Amino acid sequence: MSIDSLLDKIRRKKNPSVAGLDARVEYIPQQIIDKNIALYGKTLKAAAESVYDFNTGLIDALCDIVPAVKPQSAYYELLGPDGVAVLKKTIDYAHSKDMYVITDAKRNDIGATASAYAEAYFGSVSFGGEELTPFGTDGLTVNAYLGSDGINPFIKFCNEQNKSIFILAKTSNKSSYEFQELIVGSRSIYQVIASQIDRWGADCIGKYGFSNVGAVVGATHPRQLKELRDMYPKMFFLVPGYGAQGGGADDVAYAFTREGHGAIVNSSRGIMCAWQKKGDDGSHFAEAARDAAIEMKNDLSKVVIVA
Amino acid sequence: MSIDSLLDKIRRKKNPSVAGLDARVEYIPQQIIDKNIALYGKTLKAAAESVYDFNTGLIDALCDIVPAVKPQSAYYELLGPDGVAVLKKTIDYAHSKDMYVITDAKRNDIGATASAYAEAYFGSVSFGGEELTPFGTDGLTVNAYLGSDGINPFIKFCNEQNKSIFILAKTSNKSSYEFQELIVGSRSIYQVIASQIDRWGADCIGKYGFSNVGAVVGATHPRQLKELRDMYPKMFFLVPGYGAQGGGADDVAYAFTREGHGAIVNSSRGIMCAWQKKGDDGSHFAEAARDAAIEMKNDLSKVVIVA
Repeated sequence: MSIDSLLDKIRRKKNPSVAGLDARVEYIPQQIIDKNIALYGKTLKAAAESVYDFNTGLIDALCDIVPAVKPQSAYYELLGPDGVAVLKKTIDYAHSKDMYVITDAKRNDIGATASAYAEAYFGSVSFGGEELTPFGTDGLTVNAYLGSDGINPFIKFCNEQNKSIFILAKTSNKSSYEFQELIVGSRSIYQVIASQIDRWGADCIGKYGFSNVGAVVGATHPRQLKELRDMYPKMFFLVPGYGAQGGGADDVAYAFTREGHGAIVNSSRGIMCAWQKKGDDGSHFAEAARDAAIEMKNDLSKVVIVA
Repeated sequence: MSIDSLLDKIRRKKNPSVAGLDARVEYIPQQIIDKNIALYGKTLKAAAESVYDFNTGLIDALCDIVPAVKPQSAYYELLGPDGVAVLKKTIDYAHSKDMYVITDAKRNDIGATASAYAEAYFGSVSFGGEELTPFGTDGLTVNAYLGSDGINPFIKFCNEQNKSIFILAKTSNKSSYEFQELIVGSRSIYQVIASQIDRWGADCIGKYGFSNVGAVVGATHPRQLKELRDMYPKMFFLVPGYGAQGGGADDVAYAFTREGHGAIVNSSRGIMCAWQKKGDDGSHFAEAARDAAIEMKNDLSKVVIVA
């Protein structure tokens, strides 16, 4: 599914937001944990299946209003191989509910190995005459520190199979300035990378005028969002940092074009952990997440009109 | 296990090399594939278990002469969750043979998520009163593009639990110059990162004078190896790019101190695929790997004397 498919879903739901599925065990209602401990013991399998139950509950509650989910690979790897199995099941479940899936894994390596990552997340493996799909995600976050030959294998899937990647430009965290804002000639590193992202993405512009090769730019950096938006009208932004990390609707507004397009804003804890803020016992975690997602949609609609 | 534990193994075996376990299905003898297809069908499980059989054969053949293995996560992720299960089993098997394990995953993220990665690879998860170990590796490669708050969670494990990390400085691939050699003031980006690696690692220097916080510097860049070696005597280098990628013993010589310490050189395809070069049918893949590892050890011994 291309960036067009994501844009179609955003337009249909009039909601340029993505729900981060980044569950730590601490975010999951005790009833779900207890059920899985009864089934699998005090094991990583039980922890992972608890995440799956939590995720499917969230997806069910969100799928008619939120166009996409973004599972953060770290939280699945944290539960070992069983956790990674749940990442795959979550991707499949989200697809069954017609959601776009951006796997947030920030992968990076030299050419031959980047090819393996690209095949793992976007492609298939030939084995015994069968074509087998390891993860089958739609979008993937990628780190460009190794340069073109670490990125080209992903671009190939963007060009030929309409997959999407989001390359780290300016990340949402406080210390992102340390390397990303070092000055090279007259530009910051993140600006150099953004200009390269623009070039990498030039050959896979979709029907709405955005490229399958996008950028990650944090909501915590509104100035940079505005600057990159103005400079690169065809670049699609994945914008983390809204909500728990401190970015507000006024900040993310800069990520969008005048027509209200070109970006998707992520919220993870704000949606997943909404039930904990309400002092709920966890029985209504899905409703709380839905309410939080609607609140976010309304908050964004104050600053962005999705035509 | 700290960098000291790796150095002990290097000294004991008089061999500063690490065997990359980066198996693609194409590198595995057909007999192994056939056996696993008979057991598990034409599935990713069969492909992954073939990798495991191949890895254990390699580890058995190498464990008395090679101090460490470096599984490249991409090739396990390529086989989906079953592949990641084999990554974990491979780490455990290498430990049972007293080898040091550097997981090559180049992970990177913002602070909270970097913590999850650090716990996944180095730590444990509290669940139902149990402490469960997701991967339990000794060393991990890490990408520093997000700055200190993406690195500190890993450093914590280096300081408190003697784990080791290898941060990407100058990678072995051709396009590494694109960002890594951009000039900031009077220095290249990779030099800026190296100086930061030196600072990050200052509080966890082991008994041999090297830090648990090391750097990745490619064998394909002998000039940079020499420069960084001279500048940072306490920095331990993980050196990829020997063999198949074009680096030779004369190149990697620069990675070592005058006393013959401070680096470990990786070879992946040169060892794993040695049987294919010999025109073997695969029955003797382990012996071929052992021969190649001995040849590499001898090659390195021409330029490095491990005291």
